[in-house]
Amino acid sequence: MPRRSAADVADSRASVVDAAVDLASVEGLEGITIGRLADELAMSKSGLIGRFGNKEAMQRAVLAAAVERFTEAVWRPASRSEPGLPRLVAIVDAWVDHLRGSVFPGGCFVTTASVEYDARPGPLHDDVAAAVSRWLGVLEAEAACARDAGDLPAGREPADVAFELHSLASGGSVAGRLTGDTAALDRTRAAMRRAIGLPPDASQ
Amino acid sequence: MPRRSAADVADSRASVVDAAVDLASVEGLEGITIGRLADELAMSKSGLIGRFGNKEAMQRAVLAAAVERFTEAVWRPASRSEPGLPRLVAIVDAWVDHLRGSVFPGGCFVTTASVEYDARPGPLHDDVAAAVSRWLGVLEAEAACARDAGDLPAGREPADVAFELHSLASGGSVAGRLTGDTAALDRTRAAMRRAIGLPPDASQ
Repeated sequence: MPRRSAADVADSRASVVDAAVDLASVEGLEGITIGRLADELAMSKSGLIGRFGNKEAMQRAVLAAAVERFTEAVWRPASRSEPGLPRLVAIVDAWVDHLRGSVFPGGCFVTTASVEYDARPGPLHDDVAAAVSRWLGVLEAEAACARDAGDLPAGREPADVAFELHSLASGGSVAGRLTGDTAALDRTRAAMRRAIGLPPDASQ
Repeated sequence: MPRRSAADVADSRASVVDAAVDLASVEGLEGITIGRLADELAMSKSGLIGRFGNKEAMQRAVLAAAVERFTEAVWRPASRSEPGLPRLVAIVDAWVDHLRGSVFPGGCFVTTASVEYDARPGPLHDDVAAAVSRWLGVLEAEAACARDAGDLPAGREPADVAFELHSLASGGSVAGRLTGDTAALDRTRAAMRRAIGLPPDASQ
């Protein structure tokens, strides 16, 4: 059997995680058993257990990788805009583009995981909740910056704006995929822009 | 150890379905196997198969019952209000109350089912999509009535209002449950009221 360098092993772990993220976005994190993933990747169960230890450790690695994909697709480009309203606008655009693209074949990964674990206590619940809370915190900080600059409509609280943006993106992407409404993400983007006080269509 | 006697459930398909709705709201419709439900109800698998035929027929009956619970809790009381804006306000109030209550122990049933089936073609996908589309149609008709009466803010399209209300309720209830944010449903209600042109707090 050929020897593998540490780098090969790391690469292979990353590609296993990538494949598992795609599979979990369709079937849910709970659907990703070691056996199912071994079938999908034509690998041995023992090989997968060697990489991850157990199912839960594998699920947590998959979730972390999915959150990282979102961060790369949405936060990284938007963070190059000025803080406050310009960055919120960039976040809305990148977020809707991310939902429109096929970064996850089964739809928004974190929404799927949120629904799977909202009523199931445990480490996976805690990981998903922490990821969503961190993102809500980022949105709230940007909204607070926008408010302090006088760029939010009067009376809009940063925490409310953050929560509303998240609800619209999460709920809108699910309903759009489910019903096959091709206008869903345009509606979602318009509603998210309204939530930060902008007209639906005009560029900033 | 208290056990549900077979006699409690034997004659009532409806109570089996009710128990399955509760279980599915936590574990998902895909989690409701005949075997799992037989364990939960202390019934035989063959007894359940006799009632439903197969797993899919049982899942479809459970979904239909869950949709009926929503209709009873939200549409039935709200439909007693005048059509248009008054009815939309009543829908928002009843919907948020429904999410706040424990009608489903695992959170909004249809949102959970939407996420489970948005990427899985088949009869269950079609049933969930039809239920969501029907509800969006009801909301759109009420929003159109409100617009025709001059009760919606200028430029708000009924289909957009319907979609936004659904996104806010669906996404907001999931995020609130997941993160344990006790203000989540207040934020959701305020955002839904804004979507129909009302201030967050004032009564209509």
